[in-house]
Amino acid sequence: MPEVPITDAVVALAGGVGGAKMAQGLAGVVEPGRLTVIVNTADDVNLWGLHISPDLDTVMYTLAGIANPVTGWGVVGDSHVTLDALARYGENPWFSLGDKDFATHILRTQALARGETLTEVTTRLAQALGISVRLLPMTNDPVATRIRTGAEILDFQEYFVARKQQDVVDGVTFAGIDESRPTPGVNEAIGEADVIVFCPSNPIVSIAPILAVPGVREAIQTSDAVRIGVSPIVGGKALKGPADKMLTTLGHDASALGVARMYRDVLDIMVIDEIDAKLIQSVRELGLDVHVSQTVMGGRRDRERLAREILTLAQRSRSRA
Amino acid sequence: MPEVPITDAVVALAGGVGGAKMAQGLAGVVEPGRLTVIVNTADDVNLWGLHISPDLDTVMYTLAGIANPVTGWGVVGDSHVTLDALARYGENPWFSLGDKDFATHILRTQALARGETLTEVTTRLAQALGISVRLLPMTNDPVATRIRTGAEILDFQEYFVARKQQDVVDGVTFAGIDESRPTPGVNEAIGEADVIVFCPSNPIVSIAPILAVPGVREAIQTSDAVRIGVSPIVGGKALKGPADKMLTTLGHDASALGVARMYRDVLDIMVIDEIDAKLIQSVRELGLDVHVSQTVMGGRRDRERLAREILTLAQRSRSRA
Repeated sequence: MPEVPITDAVVALAGGVGGAKMAQGLAGVVEPGRLTVIVNTADDVNLWGLHISPDLDTVMYTLAGIANPVTGWGVVGDSHVTLDALARYGENPWFSLGDKDFATHILRTQALARGETLTEVTTRLAQALGISVRLLPMTNDPVATRIRTGAEILDFQEYFVARKQQDVVDGVTFAGIDESRPTPGVNEAIGEADVIVFCPSNPIVSIAPILAVPGVREAIQTSDAVRIGVSPIVGGKALKGPADKMLTTLGHDASALGVARMYRDVLDIMVIDEIDAKLIQSVRELGLDVHVSQTVMGGRRDRERLAREILTLAQRSRSRA
Repeated sequence: MPEVPITDAVVALAGGVGGAKMAQGLAGVVEPGRLTVIVNTADDVNLWGLHISPDLDTVMYTLAGIANPVTGWGVVGDSHVTLDALARYGENPWFSLGDKDFATHILRTQALARGETLTEVTTRLAQALGISVRLLPMTNDPVATRIRTGAEILDFQEYFVARKQQDVVDGVTFAGIDESRPTPGVNEAIGEADVIVFCPSNPIVSIAPILAVPGVREAIQTSDAVRIGVSPIVGGKALKGPADKMLTTLGHDASALGVARMYRDVLDIMVIDEIDAKLIQSVRELGLDVHVSQTVMGGRRDRERLAREILTLAQRSRSRA
């Protein structure tokens, strides 16, 4: 018997691979038209004159079912002929871009040059890929994550891709964030949401920029939605990427508890992994409800299982309130 | 015994495939550093925000030895993954662009956006491909060939690629030509040339725009160089493309004689094919010398054979003068 779609209005905040998995799970169980995914754009980068939005693309490709299942990002089965040809011209191919991928960046860049917003072109590309979820970049304005390591300031992708996250992160800033405005529709979606899901994305460089867009944190704080966070840290380790090391060097606990502390003013329920059950009491002491689950998502079914579980939890929480 | 390189300063005027073959032949026999190829840019086109220079690319790929030998344009063995992905996004892939090709267009577009000239980026790309010939776009300014068919005006690539040259050409104009300036170095190269070669390119849409850049025709007219034209029409037919039909509908003879008439004020010697030997007297009556040869070029050796033949002819003509 097929399970009934969830009719709640759901907003998810997402970064790259972890966020994309959760978003795909949610998309599989929420009624069409009821899911909005707000995606980090602070790690956008301009390469060879093209506007690359790594997190938007990862979420878009995942929702379209065409993401590379091995890396989590990029398009499955993509080739790298253009990148190799760029290298032949003497360019440094430090940032992997596939040939199918290039089509996305070319169309996005063309649209922006014509005066379309990032949101408009994202909507158009997502629709062409058959995505019915509402995909919103956090802002249409330029925001750029900068990483401080010692006395040096790195662009995010320089830190993340070129230098393989090996530098000690001593500080993170989002250039342009104070002048940025939330994408039209973001605050309305948050205001009308029944559930807000903090996907298991890097809290420092994926979720924090979304919350730092002026007005977004306040919109979440004052929302009537049940606000649920899924920890991206399991057993003290990031499922992917450098979140655990970053948390430590920036003075946080590299644990689900550390993440819960960062989100405490915008969260009702923290979802932690079974392996972290020992943290239940500490998270509760922050004033949050705790739910323990298997949070490490495998394939699509597993993602939908977790999505249904946390949305059902939210419904129960609301009916209690 | 290897043949001795020709040390004359040679300038060639070229369009696409026919021009590229002749340019490759010349490059094979002229001493390095002594050959300048001036290329038509009036059929440049912007697609998906990228600046495409079809004739420049055809000449560049051919000189680099990477042109597709079947089509004459594009890169040999190129794939079309990005173009297919553009189509998946709902774009009409009417203009064939290969994945290796995209690298060229991406870098050119980036350079132009940064304020480099078309000449500067062309030089950089050609050098990266190992080309020692000096490759000069006719102008750095925007010029656009427009085709009139009945009451309709078509952009050149719309006529040439999208509508497959099936429209009757009633008129040809080069928008922007009056305001264009020759690329720095063009008039100097012409002034210092010992030989100027009109490659077997379309006289109406490939060579005419070069001659129409203000100052270029005059520079050729007053040059001391021996000026040799190779007919792109053999036995009344264009070797490639619609030149024969265009000549006819625009009131010219679709023959080597018709082409000679168009070039008479800028030419000393007309090279015609053996098959057109009957035209010798008529061409002479225009005041031009005539040379009869096998002008249909096969592979590289054949191109070099023709190049050496016409450059030797020019040397003899000069020593007689």
